[in-house]
Amino acid sequence: MSKAELIGLDWGSTSLRAMLIDARGQVLSERRSAQGASTLAGGPAGPAAFAAALDELIADWAPLGLPMLACGMVGSQHGWREVPYADCPADAQALAAGALAVPWRGHALRLLPGLRCESAAGVPDLMRGEETQLLGALTLAPELGARSCVVMPGTHSKWARVVDGGLLGFATHLTGELYALLRRHSVLARLMPSEDFSDPSAFAAGVRAARERGEEGLSHQLFAVRTLGLGGHLAGSALPDYLSGLLIGHELRAGLAARDADAPLVLVGEPALCQRYASALALFDLAAPRLLPNTAALGLWRLSQSC
Amino acid sequence: MSKAELIGLDWGSTSLRAMLIDARGQVLSERRSAQGASTLAGGPAGPAAFAAALDELIADWAPLGLPMLACGMVGSQHGWREVPYADCPADAQALAAGALAVPWRGHALRLLPGLRCESAAGVPDLMRGEETQLLGALTLAPELGARSCVVMPGTHSKWARVVDGGLLGFATHLTGELYALLRRHSVLARLMPSEDFSDPSAFAAGVRAARERGEEGLSHQLFAVRTLGLGGHLAGSALPDYLSGLLIGHELRAGLAARDADAPLVLVGEPALCQRYASALALFDLAAPRLLPNTAALGLWRLSQSC
Repeated sequence: MSKAELIGLDWGSTSLRAMLIDARGQVLSERRSAQGASTLAGGPAGPAAFAAALDELIADWAPLGLPMLACGMVGSQHGWREVPYADCPADAQALAAGALAVPWRGHALRLLPGLRCESAAGVPDLMRGEETQLLGALTLAPELGARSCVVMPGTHSKWARVVDGGLLGFATHLTGELYALLRRHSVLARLMPSEDFSDPSAFAAGVRAARERGEEGLSHQLFAVRTLGLGGHLAGSALPDYLSGLLIGHELRAGLAARDADAPLVLVGEPALCQRYASALALFDLAAPRLLPNTAALGLWRLSQSC
Repeated sequence: MSKAELIGLDWGSTSLRAMLIDARGQVLSERRSAQGASTLAGGPAGPAAFAAALDELIADWAPLGLPMLACGMVGSQHGWREVPYADCPADAQALAAGALAVPWRGHALRLLPGLRCESAAGVPDLMRGEETQLLGALTLAPELGARSCVVMPGTHSKWARVVDGGLLGFATHLTGELYALLRRHSVLARLMPSEDFSDPSAFAAGVRAARERGEEGLSHQLFAVRTLGLGGHLAGSALPDYLSGLLIGHELRAGLAARDADAPLVLVGEPALCQRYASALALFDLAAPRLLPNTAALGLWRLSQSC
């Protein structure tokens, strides 16, 4: 049995995951809490609320005296302490150098910075947390470091351009958030039953509509979720799949057009969601991309070695 | 003073407007109620709830013994009585022929059908109520009937192709609904103060981003509302304008690409919203379109002459 060498925290907006990590970047033990940065930032206690959340989850880990490193929204403006964004192009050294410490039970918890880039048109883009997952992916599969396009699907999907082990730039797509908004609050929601995702052929139809007729515009094509449902062309139970296919299809349409065509595609994150993206990519006639699981622990380990 | 010849009802999802209309299609008197079709459909009383809402609003108009005609969601599946959609291509005769009557205080209230069309790819589109506004616009400006592209901005914007006095087809864009969802419920909402629309230059920047870089994808460009706000590039008070510009810009980008280039553009509807669309169209280097106010009353009058 290997030995714990690092306490790693993946502390996002809506959740906190604390891990004991060994010298190979493997997770030995893990605990989860719903005390995300957004929840804590809303409270009156300010930074103390973050320390209290950590007390509650891992007070018994404090005596281990291990180095501690955290990524995610815990370092944002409304987090425990604001850690300024590092700028692209960036690598592990640059990220580790930007970390700032907060005290916890006599130890220093280092908070990693997020990343900022600017598009050719001068529009900024931002991430906090995904950069750590990305470095984990490059540690797990070092051959990707030479040149790759790393896609991290999620509420805010990230498409990152990697060259020579560094992160050149990235683009965020609001796909997961748009799905949730439309699924819950829009006129489209009324026709949908409570369960999601039971009809792969409806998902494929949505992806194909985006691929073949995306120039009709997303805001127009979304209305088809309603008209196909009202007209009986698709069952209510198939509409969430069609909606998901449309949104992911539009993300792929734009993301693929913007990427370096010779950079291999990699999907990193929650396996079921990555599999949906892989199915959609197949409908764009692309070779099956490599799939990697959530690699935040490995990224935290990698970054702890650069601090 | 002219004489009332028709009781016209514009009965949508969220509101009811009752009008006394003269032989020129002018409104002599008007009353409004918040008892829209969605509200009433949710109640236990069924069709009786619609009759009661009308009792409450215009019981004193019943003794006038005038013809009565209604357009909008009152004729939908969950309305007073379902009136099947008429199919495009359609004209005033076809719409009037599809009306079905319900009894109210000894009179026959005729409910107009909505319109259905199918895109070249076989995807259906639907409207209920806008077809009446459109016929009103063609009555107010008959020269548009020969050939025009009529845009009716709103929660669900409609782009209609008119040739030889008939409606060939149309496309719906969810623009207004997306704005409301993102404004109220999304991660973008947090940075925005409560007031809308104070910064025309931010609106123009949003429209230009859609026009010049729309291939980056709407779901990506939406994230810029957040990053431009967080980075201090745009004040919080300018973000609703930027968001509105992006969404309207994407609608125009798709709608203009799909229209017959030689069909003159016309904007029909609420003047302030039409003016926003006109400002956006100017940024697409298009000649100022004709603007017409809400023409539902005139449309109801026109259709009552064809019944």
